[in-house]
Amino acid sequence: MATNGRATSHGRTLRVAGAQIRNVVGDLAGNAEQILAAMSEAEEAGADVVVFPELALTGYPLADLVLRKEFVNAAAATLDELACSSGLVASVVGTVARVPSRRSWDIHGRDVAISAAVLFDGQLRGAYHKVMLPNYEVFDEARNFAPGSRPDALWRIGEVVAGIAICEDLWSGDGPPEAQAAAGAEILLVPNASPFHQEKPAGRHAHASEVARRNATPVVYVNCVGGQDELVFDGGSLVVDANGELLHRAPQFETECFCLDVPLGPPRPVAGKPITVHARPRSPRRQMPAPASAPEMPADAQVWRCLVLGTRDFLLKNGRSSAVLGLSGGIDAAVTAAVAADALGPANVLGVAMPTPESPAEELHDAEVLAAGLGIEYHVIPLEGITSAVRDGLAELLDGTPDERPTEGLAARTRAAILWAISDQLGHLPLATGNKTELSVGTAAVHGDMAGVFAPLKDCPKTLLYRLAALRNQRGSAIPQRIIERPPTVRTDAWGELPGYAVLDQIVERYLERGESLDDLVAAGFAAPLVRRILQLVDDSEFQRRQTPPGVKITTRAFGQDLRMPITNAWRPYATDHGPPVAVPLNPVRGDPPGTE
Amino acid sequence: MATNGRATSHGRTLRVAGAQIRNVVGDLAGNAEQILAAMSEAEEAGADVVVFPELALTGYPLADLVLRKEFVNAAAATLDELACSSGLVASVVGTVARVPSRRSWDIHGRDVAISAAVLFDGQLRGAYHKVMLPNYEVFDEARNFAPGSRPDALWRIGEVVAGIAICEDLWSGDGPPEAQAAAGAEILLVPNASPFHQEKPAGRHAHASEVARRNATPVVYVNCVGGQDELVFDGGSLVVDANGELLHRAPQFETECFCLDVPLGPPRPVAGKPITVHARPRSPRRQMPAPASAPEMPADAQVWRCLVLGTRDFLLKNGRSSAVLGLSGGIDAAVTAAVAADALGPANVLGVAMPTPESPAEELHDAEVLAAGLGIEYHVIPLEGITSAVRDGLAELLDGTPDERPTEGLAARTRAAILWAISDQLGHLPLATGNKTELSVGTAAVHGDMAGVFAPLKDCPKTLLYRLAALRNQRGSAIPQRIIERPPTVRTDAWGELPGYAVLDQIVERYLERGESLDDLVAAGFAAPLVRRILQLVDDSEFQRRQTPPGVKITTRAFGQDLRMPITNAWRPYATDHGPPVAVPLNPVRGDPPGTE
Repeated sequence: MATNGRATSHGRTLRVAGAQIRNVVGDLAGNAEQILAAMSEAEEAGADVVVFPELALTGYPLADLVLRKEFVNAAAATLDELACSSGLVASVVGTVARVPSRRSWDIHGRDVAISAAVLFDGQLRGAYHKVMLPNYEVFDEARNFAPGSRPDALWRIGEVVAGIAICEDLWSGDGPPEAQAAAGAEILLVPNASPFHQEKPAGRHAHASEVARRNATPVVYVNCVGGQDELVFDGGSLVVDANGELLHRAPQFETECFCLDVPLGPPRPVAGKPITVHARPRSPRRQMPAPASAPEMPADAQVWRCLVLGTRDFLLKNGRSSAVLGLSGGIDAAVTAAVAADALGPANVLGVAMPTPESPAEELHDAEVLAAGLGIEYHVIPLEGITSAVRDGLAELLDGTPDERPTEGLAARTRAAILWAISDQLGHLPLATGNKTELSVGTAAVHGDMAGVFAPLKDCPKTLLYRLAALRNQRGSAIPQRIIERPPTVRTDAWGELPGYAVLDQIVERYLERGESLDDLVAAGFAAPLVRRILQLVDDSEFQRRQTPPGVKITTRAFGQDLRMPITNAWRPYATDHGPPVAVPLNPVRGDPPGTE
Repeated sequence: MATNGRATSHGRTLRVAGAQIRNVVGDLAGNAEQILAAMSEAEEAGADVVVFPELALTGYPLADLVLRKEFVNAAAATLDELACSSGLVASVVGTVARVPSRRSWDIHGRDVAISAAVLFDGQLRGAYHKVMLPNYEVFDEARNFAPGSRPDALWRIGEVVAGIAICEDLWSGDGPPEAQAAAGAEILLVPNASPFHQEKPAGRHAHASEVARRNATPVVYVNCVGGQDELVFDGGSLVVDANGELLHRAPQFETECFCLDVPLGPPRPVAGKPITVHARPRSPRRQMPAPASAPEMPADAQVWRCLVLGTRDFLLKNGRSSAVLGLSGGIDAAVTAAVAADALGPANVLGVAMPTPESPAEELHDAEVLAAGLGIEYHVIPLEGITSAVRDGLAELLDGTPDERPTEGLAARTRAAILWAISDQLGHLPLATGNKTELSVGTAAVHGDMAGVFAPLKDCPKTLLYRLAALRNQRGSAIPQRIIERPPTVRTDAWGELPGYAVLDQIVERYLERGESLDDLVAAGFAAPLVRRILQLVDDSEFQRRQTPPGVKITTRAFGQDLRMPITNAWRPYATDHGPPVAVPLNPVRGDPPGTE
């Protein structure tokens, strides 16, 4: 049954459609329309089964929306309608399902499962409930969902025995796929809602192949597409055969309904008791030509598409189609503007330069050239009159204050107030231009550089922005070379001397994404005093990160739900004798604070 | 052994100390000092055992700080030092402990447990690991912690068999306390980190009594004290006897080390195998007089103390001792100012009135009287010059724009920019004055009314503020009566007519805190069109809530970690034909957005 350890299908195939749709959280009617359309398409293609993404009907992630009884009821009612419309293609539709209340590791019963409903010939034939509920990084499924209790459920679809597993179920090495293959599954159908980060696409491919090889079953991995708050689901659905070889790859960041004949795994005894979806023998048909696979995208191109889709979907799904942002002549604003132009169309983006008298004329000029290059609207509002009005207002209060600190914070927050005022009047959504590096070390003024309703570059390290600018310029040099080549300013005032971004970004990534410690970083060759200063800045800046708008996750660990530290945190192992940097607004102190009242 | 179903101890007692300490997250050295001091005190009192709160050594909650290996190592090293210092009082010390990696409902192994270490005579004698890990509302313990695997562990302390259970362990009705009592425990020692909400203190008391009665064991419930970001741990530790009768209640919002002789539950066969902490017979001693219990605090007084402690600890634990806020002459600012004055001392609070030409002179006067009444510093900065400078700057861009919307957002954000500028110069931390009602229905301008580093009243419904003002005025009429009596303005412009706050707050509370649906609310007598409008406003305002500063949780469900909805959420079952209100910046749309690029 196997040659050289390779699984052979003995010529048996299942015609499988995968519907990589672009669903929206909470949009039951709209998602159902997409599902119905794909069901029709699969029927036309003569598919035996069509697989939809995880929570295709409800959208993902649902957060506490799933605690609303009316929502769960409405999803159930919509599923019933879908079931009524189902034909002779077995349809595996992700949704939520009410289940008997089940406790996990606490006292709180959960009574909703993440479900893959199987629809056929006008009926709901059954449902698989996700067993593994990820509860780490961006995931919090154990918060609101009950785990499924039938990891080894099997489904008879005509002459074929299939297993269904959902997303996390696939990844454990001894989970539902293994139980299903052992019980007799010849193919694994796997709905997913798998958000993008830079290492995800390669990881999924390697992993799906491994599961296929381990169990000698083909794996049909169907993902969704679209931005949802901080996450972007990048599609890239995969079909691998029982030897782990790629049969099909859907494109990333786009919808696709594909259909292909998948050679089954070797026949095996059926130990389990499959739920019969139907027992119709298959009518003879010719093998269909394999659809063309999407090519692998280069790494930075994936990031660009992710930023564009995440930004577009945040605005469009929330009823807005235009944006406003500040143009400084720097790289952050340039890349943000280019992302916005690609996401919304340049005619829907307004760039506003808000120079101070100290702003170099060259940078103002670059902002104008950038706007022209991108084709976005451009406007200049000098800041001087406004900030001097604020300074006049403060003069009496601050009279005699010896501290003449730089007014960068004031300028940044005044710019933000102007952008909000424009937004109030014109309806454009304000975009923040800050990047991950400055958010990491706390050099972004709260409600200043990071002010906005969405922050496209929130998870982009500074060094990545230069690569992205160069990449974008391959489609016409919209971003002036001078912006790309101007050496970035690394703030050295209150923070002490920081290294160049190349070093800074490496240290931050190793600390936040790789979990490396001070010792690890020193062993890797970074100077200990430098590492201590940076790690302490990262830890001390948590409060600033809590008030930033959502942005697009692209790295393995993004600030937000993914990476949450206590704001009040007296564990400061990296602090030096110099004490905390003065410009960080909050500096945890040790010891028992004075007693109450 | 029991009379009338009541458990009797046959005269056997355990002398138990409880250390209701005020620990700080991450402050291993400072927390250890407090623990050592309480261990000494317990030794002097001749205690057999001293019980500390959950995670007493590390602070609670740790969020992703516990993923830092160095932190877990440092906690272990500090625990070793505490163990070396332990004497002949068994000390139950909450901390984190490395354990063999254990999977829960996902593929991710956790290798740190929430632990209660038992120290005695210079040694670590063992540790109990929390079995039930709450993962709902404000809790996310299943994210990072491994559950304990020995719910029925027992401890021999001299002649007594004790059980140890941690916080959530106590609440299931069939958890560790039941297993321990069945196995032979005569007393339950329970470390907690239990945050305040209005219904918590009464709930804890009722529950501890129930567990005691069910198992015929006394329960020693020890909580910690202090503010940690959005949570306030209110102390209020309890000791109940085997019949559930209160033996001692520690004060709320203050530290206390208490010690008392606790009558044990009836002797029972020991089915388990207790870990021997020690087998020293107890030297004869006289029964000690019972310490005085703290009286029950009235409900609103608890809230006031909670707000004051939460605000104080956020500032002091983060190295700040002074605050600045805007004084409008309204009730929100008045109560915030009073909380700040009580938290920091009036000399450390600066109130800034920022009137526009339209601001009623009466309200400006009230702000001044308020400042004088509280004894806080007061300053006036007229807004007109600044906002007109912004309007001048915008004139050219907006020329011909027909929409002459109110500039409330501009005024609010300009005020915020002024407060931030004062903070930059003088070091005072800016406090936001917004309340829960306006955050619920989205009438607070992002980065305007809710701008600041901390928002004391974030979880206080508007109607509660009037009661709190009256309560505060019992200590001298600092808040002018005119502020309390002035009818609140309920915005009626873009939001449509809203009801008075009394009705609004009821609907919001029932929806968010009680989980009531539209149907429930209508059945309760509220008009359907009104309920629909309010529920939709609540759902549509999520994005604004994501950018607010932390505040003090006082209700059963607070915005933040406790109550998280998707921002992008097309489920709008309450939307009427009028469409979404125009002033809500984000309005989810249904249907598939246009394709990518």
